[in-house]
Amino acid sequence: MTQTSRISIFVMLFVLIALNATAQKITPYLQSTKKILTFPSKVLNETRTIYIHCPKADSTNPNKTYPVLYLMDGESHFDMLSQYSDYLGRWDVNVIPQMIIVGIVNTKRTRDLTPTESIINYFGLPDTSKVSWMKPSGGNERFLQFIREELMPYINSHYKTEPHNILAGHSFGGLAAVYCLFTHPEMFQMYISVSPSLWWDREYVLKLADQKLKKGAVLNKTLFLSDANEGVSDSSTFHTNVLKLDAILKGKTLTGLNYQYNYYSHETHMTEPLPAYYDALRFIYKDWKNP
Amino acid sequence: MTQTSRISIFVMLFVLIALNATAQKITPYLQSTKKILTFPSKVLNETRTIYIHCPKADSTNPNKTYPVLYLMDGESHFDMLSQYSDYLGRWDVNVIPQMIIVGIVNTKRTRDLTPTESIINYFGLPDTSKVSWMKPSGGNERFLQFIREELMPYINSHYKTEPHNILAGHSFGGLAAVYCLFTHPEMFQMYISVSPSLWWDREYVLKLADQKLKKGAVLNKTLFLSDANEGVSDSSTFHTNVLKLDAILKGKTLTGLNYQYNYYSHETHMTEPLPAYYDALRFIYKDWKNP
Repeated sequence: MTQTSRISIFVMLFVLIALNATAQKITPYLQSTKKILTFPSKVLNETRTIYIHCPKADSTNPNKTYPVLYLMDGESHFDMLSQYSDYLGRWDVNVIPQMIIVGIVNTKRTRDLTPTESIINYFGLPDTSKVSWMKPSGGNERFLQFIREELMPYINSHYKTEPHNILAGHSFGGLAAVYCLFTHPEMFQMYISVSPSLWWDREYVLKLADQKLKKGAVLNKTLFLSDANEGVSDSSTFHTNVLKLDAILKGKTLTGLNYQYNYYSHETHMTEPLPAYYDALRFIYKDWKNP
Repeated sequence: MTQTSRISIFVMLFVLIALNATAQKITPYLQSTKKILTFPSKVLNETRTIYIHCPKADSTNPNKTYPVLYLMDGESHFDMLSQYSDYLGRWDVNVIPQMIIVGIVNTKRTRDLTPTESIINYFGLPDTSKVSWMKPSGGNERFLQFIREELMPYINSHYKTEPHNILAGHSFGGLAAVYCLFTHPEMFQMYISVSPSLWWDREYVLKLADQKLKKGAVLNKTLFLSDANEGVSDSSTFHTNVLKLDAILKGKTLTGLNYQYNYYSHETHMTEPLPAYYDALRFIYKDWKNP
């Protein structure tokens, strides 16, 4: 290599470095507190995908523990709940505790989130088609067993959790939340049920609620319930049924139940989760004070 | 290596593989549509960090273009706006267009987001301390020049943008949005101003609005304005001043202005952005139909 060509290379390198110093640069935006857990479940006999969002470590309090919100339809609402909990739990906002969000991604949604095997559709009519979207159904008991016996122990052993769990869901997920409240109340302290599909199997869960709740009983739970303007073909089955559940809860004159029902007249079935999950977090922690 | 040791290794490998197949696995949660842009600005004479969120490519419409929302206080509200726009723009929600979110991260916030050099504080009194948080101030004109001459051309040349821009900000960011509307109305079609700090410099921007807006003028813009329950020490300067701006806008009997003012009586200065940005997106696109 000649002296001249060596100098040329140096000049080129210098120019490249100088250019680089003034050039725009694109890098990935990583949210390091979110992880994907691949979880082989024996109960469900399949591998499940779980999204986990954890608050950033607090260096002044490394042993800090967090409540855990278990969220159904993880693929739809995990980012939303993570964002709400992060923002509202920020030191300069500070109206709810920081929390761990566990988003369960669906495989067979209807199977996992419905309490009974049924082919009775939204309009109360049997869906007899062979490839009905309603098949398979009735696996909610097993799905809750998966949460109770496999997922919760995993989360509690791998994260700094408080013994304080919240279950949140929308539509079939809202149905599953209400079903869980009346059948396994030991699992969660707080329930968020956004537009529960109470129409399922000729209002099976409404009948269950009426049976399970004794008049004047003690129910030390927090429940946020909501629905929206979501009539299908002039029907308003969601609204009618949520009002029925509201009437059952109020008619039983329960003790200890911390309960709110919100109706979103300007929201649809699909837009409702955004304001409803926000209001739900504000409601369930309305008496919370940062310790 | 003996035959036995070879077999042992195979057995060990098999056991490891079998174990691995049933073990939980953690992987990072990447949001591949979000990027960090490092942008050396000549106008500001410093390098800025910009967060960019882009909708996922639509394989059925590769040439699809998107409106762009420029967001001040990127480090605080970028995730929120990205989440709202993603969710509300989903095919099965579909109430606003999918959009590009450009979150501008602060360096010297007070300098960039205030229109004048001032040491008059929230209570109308001079802050004469040498290390006042109010210093430096008055750089909003230059900051808007940075957006107009450097950032917008970059975004428009690197992304599939529509000629449709939105400016959104909270507090000082809300002030900057309103200032921009009255001084550089050609830059944006829509403005979201959440609790603007109209108290700045003895209500400088309110006076400006009153001067700039002629009675009966045409102002073909969309503006969402809001405030909350955010009095400081029994004062409610935010609310009083937002009402003054509301009165100016209504008193001028403008033509073409698509305007909404929301008051959030149950929110504080810091919680308000969550519901306000949601309502703002729903308002500015209330007449939008997916083409």
